[in-house]
Amino acid sequence: MFKLFHKLLRRDRAFIQAITNVTSITPDNINLYTLALTHTSFVKQNTTGKQETNERLEFLGDSILGAVVAEFLFKKFPYKDEGFLTEIRSRIVNRESLNNIAMRIGLNVLVKIDQKDHNSRFKSINGNALEALVGAIYLDKGFKTTKKFILDKLIKPHFDLHTLVNTTSNFKSKLIEWAQGQNQNIRFEIINQKQSGNAAEFTAEVLLNDKSIATGSGFSKKKAEQSAAEKALVALRIE
Amino acid sequence: MFKLFHKLLRRDRAFIQAITNVTSITPDNINLYTLALTHTSFVKQNTTGKQETNERLEFLGDSILGAVVAEFLFKKFPYKDEGFLTEIRSRIVNRESLNNIAMRIGLNVLVKIDQKDHNSRFKSINGNALEALVGAIYLDKGFKTTKKFILDKLIKPHFDLHTLVNTTSNFKSKLIEWAQGQNQNIRFEIINQKQSGNAAEFTAEVLLNDKSIATGSGFSKKKAEQSAAEKALVALRIE
Repeated sequence: MFKLFHKLLRRDRAFIQAITNVTSITPDNINLYTLALTHTSFVKQNTTGKQETNERLEFLGDSILGAVVAEFLFKKFPYKDEGFLTEIRSRIVNRESLNNIAMRIGLNVLVKIDQKDHNSRFKSINGNALEALVGAIYLDKGFKTTKKFILDKLIKPHFDLHTLVNTTSNFKSKLIEWAQGQNQNIRFEIINQKQSGNAAEFTAEVLLNDKSIATGSGFSKKKAEQSAAEKALVALRIE
Repeated sequence: MFKLFHKLLRRDRAFIQAITNVTSITPDNINLYTLALTHTSFVKQNTTGKQETNERLEFLGDSILGAVVAEFLFKKFPYKDEGFLTEIRSRIVNRESLNNIAMRIGLNVLVKIDQKDHNSRFKSINGNALEALVGAIYLDKGFKTTKKFILDKLIKPHFDLHTLVNTTSNFKSKLIEWAQGQNQNIRFEIINQKQSGNAAEFTAEVLLNDKSIATGSGFSKKKAEQSAAEKALVALRIE
């Protein structure tokens, strides 16, 4: 019994050390961090009863991350409008980029997954765990510490704002490229045009082999097509 | 000159008092609050050069509000999953409900709009101003004060969680009702079914007079239709 206790203590100490290495934060409530780094697949495999996974923490962390990045961009770009801020934020906190950061800070090594579970090999596990970690830090240490962690460990070292701003995401070309590679037929159609005040709003439809898969709207034909293409990429799960 | 100064001072004092009445917060940086409560229409009418509107503050406030409500629900419902939390949050922070709260706390009286501008009479002005106000409080007073304001002034007095949880939003029936009222033809079609792990994912399409206007997916036919109907409501701007 005493031996087991010591063993557990040693395991905890190693985990606390690992968290500190990755975050520069010394955890108080270690359970929160353990939970943050436990993927559903692991819970399913290892327990019989109902057990918490990191998905609730991910929900919380996602919103804290969004708020901190919003403030960061708000102050960084005092002359840019909210459309710009929204776009740049989504380039920072999208699934792919969160996955990349999670790997870079070594979080992937700490995430407990069920290796045999096919679903658990989805790419988004590490990004999700990163969001859950943000949630855990917030509950454990409060807003100020979390904000510092997000800015100093996740944003500033991993994003070059200049590059971020000057990259244009072209969803339409991405979709067309994908279709060519898959030998599928993609076309765009403007299916609606509506006068809204002094501006015209367009709705574009994306057709995959003549079947509608997404629509999107915007205040120019180009923007409507981009929006529809973006949704089509999501619907087709193309990253 | 001295007279003008006094007049300005008096106007400022009255505005500070009004803000304090609504928020129970005494503003430090009054400009932030003035900006938060200035609608684009007012700026367009009254100035010639480029001037700031409240839309950037709205972007910031929206994300702070989302984070605070996320934590509130996370703690309030320790046994509910992230799908539930996301749904309940969206019932609290959607446009309609923010507009209602803004009116109830009397914010609508403080928002500067151009009365002659048709667009400025859109219903969402007050809800947007409320989000901008949250952004202003955050920049002026920090996270703690803002969180207290959101919980004590916006959430707790205006939402009954029990009712919120037990109301089901049925987008499909809402859409069908609308169509009947407008003498339009609405139908739903399941256009795709995909095996994803051990679950089947469906894609539903909404057709308005045989023209596709939205698609949505989910792990049951019903959920896919609800999702498609929800998007169709947005696309058709039905509130």
